[in-house]
Amino acid sequence: MKLIMAVVQDQDSNRLMSALVDNNFRSTKLATTGGFLKSGNTTFMIGVEDVRVNKCLQIIRDNCKSRDQLMAPISPMGGNADSYIPYPVEVSVGGATVFVLPIDQFHQF
Amino acid sequence: MKLIMAVVQDQDSNRLMSALVDNNFRSTKLATTGGFLKSGNTTFMIGVEDVRVNKCLQIIRDNCKSRDQLMAPISPMGGNADSYIPYPVEVSVGGATVFVLPIDQFHQF
Amino acid sequence: MKLIMAVVQDQDSNRLMSALVDNNFRSTKLATTGGFLKSGNTTFMIGVEDVRVNKCLQIIRDNCKSRDQLMAPISPMGGNADSYIPYPVEVSVGGATVFVLPIDQFHQF
Ligand code: NI
Ligand code: NI
Ligand code: NI
Repeated sequence: MKLIMAVVQDQDSNRLMSALVDNNFRSTKLATTGGFLKSGNTTFMIGVEDVRVNKCLQIIRDNCKSRDQLMAPISPMGGNADSYIPYPVEVSVGGATVFVLPIDQFHQF
Repeated sequence: MKLIMAVVQDQDSNRLMSALVDNNFRSTKLATTGGFLKSGNTTFMIGVEDVRVNKCLQIIRDNCKSRDQLMAPISPMGGNADSYIPYPVEVSVGGATVFVLPIDQFHQF
Repeated sequence: MKLIMAVVQDQDSNRLMSALVDNNFRSTKLATTGGFLKSGNTTFMIGVEDVRVNKCLQIIRDNCKSRDQLMAPISPMGGNADSYIPYPVEVSVGGATVFVLPIDQFHQF
């Protein structure tokens, strides 16, 4: 068994949880605040049999990997038209920081 | 030293904390949301000397293990009498998912 | 790589976060509730290259170590003058409990 700790962005959290459940991975979520990733994030703790570690990593990458996204321009509230960008901009979203930890014992009571 | 990560149900959390304190185990609780166990849960991080790991696991099992509980029937609000079960039913409560992690270094500052 | 889990008091949390950022350590904070340390606390998860573990531990110790602090006397609300101590008292604040965990794999997606 391994314990996978994965820090992912909040916006990818529900999709990752669904994908883990669909693939019979059991996880728990820890409430986390800022840090590795820019906006709000969530840490998943996932107990994984050794032979399924790669599958789990693939699911995390597929659902959370850093990618560019077009963001519609937002009208500046109350002015400062100087800094207004009147066309969509590409921003980087998502991303995951993943630790695979060895474990000495695993128990379910 | 080992680091024990134990995910337990909220309803067993206070009792486990008391039992750990009574036995001189030092722990901290992480706020967790759903996952390994059906209802709300809490993750305990417990730093344990190697010779006391079994004692700690026994305390977790004694206070959190999955067990059946009789639940009194609840009158259906606003009807749907079809699904009303007018006698106590047995439900499974509790349960713990426990990881014992090796550690390289332990410090208290 | 190592994963450092550090439980520190809330009052030292912001200062530690700044010091970690200044030194290019990447961390995430877990919301924690009581336990190892008396008042509210925060758990930092920090991914650290092996050669920088000592530097990281030094930063945690410098910003969080247990120390005595003079506390101004507080006038008792609504009386009980018997227990009122009319001079500053020394109280112990801070402190950190730190686990350095080995990791099998580290990924950023
Ligand atoms: Ni294994
Ligand atoms: Ni040890
Ligand atoms: Ni390493």
